[in-house]
Amino acid sequence: MNNGKTFIVTGAASGIGAETCRLLKEQGATVIGVDRDPTGNADRFFEADLGDPASIDTLVAELPEGADGLANIAGVPPTRAAEAVLKVNFYGLQRLTLAIVPKLADGASIANLASLAGFGWPNAVDQVKRAMKVSLDDDVAGFCRAEGLDNAEGGRSYFLSKEALIVWTMQNRWTWRDRNITMNCISPGPVDTPILGDFLQTLGERAKEDRKHMDRPGRPQDVAPVVAFALSEHAKWFRGANLTVDGGMSGHILSNFHQF
Amino acid sequence: MNNGKTFIVTGAASGIGAETCRLLKEQGATVIGVDRDPTGNADRFFEADLGDPASIDTLVAELPEGADGLANIAGVPPTRAAEAVLKVNFYGLQRLTLAIVPKLADGASIANLASLAGFGWPNAVDQVKRAMKVSLDDDVAGFCRAEGLDNAEGGRSYFLSKEALIVWTMQNRWTWRDRNITMNCISPGPVDTPILGDFLQTLGERAKEDRKHMDRPGRPQDVAPVVAFALSEHAKWFRGANLTVDGGMSGHILSNFHQF
Repeated sequence: MNNGKTFIVTGAASGIGAETCRLLKEQGATVIGVDRDPTGNADRFFEADLGDPASIDTLVAELPEGADGLANIAGVPPTRAAEAVLKVNFYGLQRLTLAIVPKLADGASIANLASLAGFGWPNAVDQVKRAMKVSLDDDVAGFCRAEGLDNAEGGRSYFLSKEALIVWTMQNRWTWRDRNITMNCISPGPVDTPILGDFLQTLGERAKEDRKHMDRPGRPQDVAPVVAFALSEHAKWFRGANLTVDGGMSGHILSNFHQF
Repeated sequence: MNNGKTFIVTGAASGIGAETCRLLKEQGATVIGVDRDPTGNADRFFEADLGDPASIDTLVAELPEGADGLANIAGVPPTRAAEAVLKVNFYGLQRLTLAIVPKLADGASIANLASLAGFGWPNAVDQVKRAMKVSLDDDVAGFCRAEGLDNAEGGRSYFLSKEALIVWTMQNRWTWRDRNITMNCISPGPVDTPILGDFLQTLGERAKEDRKHMDRPGRPQDVAPVVAFALSEHAKWFRGANLTVDGGMSGHILSNFHQF
């Protein structure tokens, strides 16, 4: 499906990013990995801190031209400070993506790893709109203070980072239409990665209740094939969409809400 | 991706169904086609009227055991009578699916072709719940009269048939979990198939306005790969989900609604 293509994968060193590298290589693609931590998972590797504008700009200057897609998988868990969560999971992703688009091949695909945590964005529209007015060049720490995110319980900054990502992806459904560059989100439910423990710690009872309904947490192997599909030519009529691959949890939430 | 698998495809004679047959065969699968009209698109063919309970029951008795998936693609356009629309697009699909599940292989995948027309289901929950109380054995014509669907403008029966399909799929996210049989929807936007003309005729100004925002209507080749993906082992953590492959139209609707 992706034979002969070249893809950039952030968060390549662990979890879903690592499995995505493995699968894309198995499919015959060349993988350019990006992570804070050096890894041999990719064919080429670039070290970067995706919450730091200077590091992102250096990365973009170094990355080769002509990649067929970008998988934005790097992310930090809700146990980190609100500022770091928003910077890495949303503002940094946004900066990297906007900067790299001119270097991508025509027809490239961008796949953003969102989360079930972002599924409630329609109930957080006002805060998402405020978050959208900020960028990585602005005072993200100040935004977090103004929104009370520093001390918010239940990982609100994490939820907001993923809500903003889903909305931003939707907003850009047609931005690069002239070059047939498409962008979509993949929203996994709880996945058994190095950050799952951090999730359960932060989300507490809510996550435990959700877990009861699932046969098992997801594995990176459940999600990476969806990323690989979203990067492929088979997904080119998806634009600004959100693929909810979560073992049924978003359907469970909707069914409960509407009392089906 | 689907090499060596066997799939049942309804609506095999034309449009998205025909292209799905072609693609699945290209991927190395064996395809069992079902349609009102005889076709050579599949490896084996069964003729059936999917709005008729007796025809469905005969079909189910004849179909071989052990298929790895069912693609419910057969559908009729909103120019048909409301009764026929609901019978083929929802009640017949439901009857066929429930009857065939015992004959499917463990781990099978069911892919239901819904539509962008069903995207507004959260705004039609009460009517969808009433529709859910009816089955193909009941008085569907009477239900249509009671709901005023016979004379409804704008293809309301069509919208309702797809809304009900999306909700029913969501409701059954875990029904066959013990056998790892999953079911999901694919919701295309307007696709250039033999029934596109019927759509535009029925939907009128609304559809014309939508079309302005799209670069082009979809083609069966934009949708069939999504069906093939949904049938594959790569999609097994999707449960009760709705894959909106519509060139960005659902994102456009959401963005307008929330004023992003």
